[in-house]
Amino acid sequence: MKNNKGRRYAVGVDFGGTYIKMGLVDEGGRLWVRRKLPTAGRSQPEEWIAAVRNAFDEMIKESGVRAVEIAGIGIGVPGLVDFERGFVYELVNVPGWKDVPLAEIMQSQVGKTVRVDNDVNAMAVGECMFGAGREHRNAVFATLGTGVGGALLIEGKLYRGAYSMAGEIGHISIDKDGRRSPQGRGGLEQYVGNRRIVERALRELRRGRRSKIRTLVGGRLDRITPREIAAAAQAGDRLALEIFDFMADCLATAFASLTYILQPEVFIVGGGVAHSGKVLFDPLNRHLRERLSQPFASRVQIVRARLGNDAGTVGAAALVLH
Amino acid sequence: MKNNKGRRYAVGVDFGGTYIKMGLVDEGGRLWVRRKLPTAGRSQPEEWIAAVRNAFDEMIKESGVRAVEIAGIGIGVPGLVDFERGFVYELVNVPGWKDVPLAEIMQSQVGKTVRVDNDVNAMAVGECMFGAGREHRNAVFATLGTGVGGALLIEGKLYRGAYSMAGEIGHISIDKDGRRSPQGRGGLEQYVGNRRIVERALRELRRGRRSKIRTLVGGRLDRITPREIAAAAQAGDRLALEIFDFMADCLATAFASLTYILQPEVFIVGGGVAHSGKVLFDPLNRHLRERLSQPFASRVQIVRARLGNDAGTVGAAALVLH
Repeated sequence: MKNNKGRRYAVGVDFGGTYIKMGLVDEGGRLWVRRKLPTAGRSQPEEWIAAVRNAFDEMIKESGVRAVEIAGIGIGVPGLVDFERGFVYELVNVPGWKDVPLAEIMQSQVGKTVRVDNDVNAMAVGECMFGAGREHRNAVFATLGTGVGGALLIEGKLYRGAYSMAGEIGHISIDKDGRRSPQGRGGLEQYVGNRRIVERALRELRRGRRSKIRTLVGGRLDRITPREIAAAAQAGDRLALEIFDFMADCLATAFASLTYILQPEVFIVGGGVAHSGKVLFDPLNRHLRERLSQPFASRVQIVRARLGNDAGTVGAAALVLH
Repeated sequence: MKNNKGRRYAVGVDFGGTYIKMGLVDEGGRLWVRRKLPTAGRSQPEEWIAAVRNAFDEMIKESGVRAVEIAGIGIGVPGLVDFERGFVYELVNVPGWKDVPLAEIMQSQVGKTVRVDNDVNAMAVGECMFGAGREHRNAVFATLGTGVGGALLIEGKLYRGAYSMAGEIGHISIDKDGRRSPQGRGGLEQYVGNRRIVERALRELRRGRRSKIRTLVGGRLDRITPREIAAAAQAGDRLALEIFDFMADCLATAFASLTYILQPEVFIVGGGVAHSGKVLFDPLNRHLRERLSQPFASRVQIVRARLGNDAGTVGAAALVLH
């Protein structure tokens, strides 16, 4: 492997439910060496740390990068974190992780800077440094998935709020009297989260509505995911297009509020549903502009996240290279 | 007048529809000399600038402050401003003010730094430096009036957004399918602006509902303002309390979204209706906490703005002393 002398590198670790993905990333955002370990059998803190530490050593060896050029390790985890201390409060879907001083432990073992953050924050930092946000100083990053994750870039820096919990754009209320959840009423992700989109399709299909969605799952409605709805929409299916239009309008409502509050230069949208392309972004752009007065509408942009599958690892590395 | 040597002072100018208020303010936020000129007869840019310049000279003389101790003039205007250039795009309710390079003109005449900003931003800076926001680095400032004005303090600085228009919290949508306005649908101020509150009272009273509000205006419904509704609420009137509860819940919806997005330490609420006290702040606190998950609910505070009638002048001066 080519090695430019004097460069800075970091190893990014993306802690996913299925895989632990790792990457050696340079300060230009390029990925030099990758690793992918199944999470199963390594999900407990002790074994997880040992596995990551091992892989880290191997990757350095394989890359030929000198130890002195490694600035540190960045870790993105699916849960609540105190970024300042690199302390994991809790990982909602991974048992065994509660109150783990992850940065402290790793740091004492590898002797390098270790930064730990929520995975969505890590992705946002990555997109902002190396992806779609590269040219911007004020951006809102949104990931569409089970929920709606978010992160804010303000004056070139990730904004964390008074107690490190800012950026929860999935809980913006788009309807004062709307659906209840533990986060209040009418929260955005109560309308556009993956499960909600599928529920909406099911409700219509069970009423007997005709749609390509049904064909795409061979009549087995329990197999419907946002992917099939997107495929049907791309093929011009009316129900699927309606669902995307509704989702886009809900997102546009929250984006309009965010625009009036923060006036970002750009919204960067990532996550599974963002791969749907035009069927999402066309109505999203249209509805957002309908919901803004001219001076705001004329200046705001929406773009797709660029880092794709590497967003997690590159983002985690960016926590150190930032 | 006592004059502490080596102090820095600024003159703040609050450009209101009825009065031009001016104040000589020291860097501790104390007001030393006041002036109040009727706006009538001085509303055009040329005469306005001459009047302010005159008053400025007189105030300096009267105060005994040495010219070298005056850091400059800060001006808050009721309209759209480019803060960087001190350029007034337009004052919505004052004809004659369109594309006026106010800072440039004043600066060339008085030979001091001149800063110009929207009056709500100026008040927010004042509250943050010298009032309720003094101990905070992250705050949202809201003024309740005809509309709902807002400003954001982020990491100790007023946040202006990508194109100087951020902080328009009055346009946060609290209902995706709600009232239309040039700013979109369901904007907060479409529900809690002064006129909307009065309309709500009128609707009920015209339906024949009994209420102290009617008595307070001697049966002349066209005389109802938010002040009478507040007075009735403070006297325990049921309709008036309902109106305040509704208003508080609408505000709480927007404040909850702001909390999830920005996680400020504090909301600072000023403007006419904020003088209503408990009848507003009690339900506002309650509804906000209902609409937030525990980690957010337990950390956020709502306080009343402290600068009162001097908020405009002290705030304008703070633009220079900031």
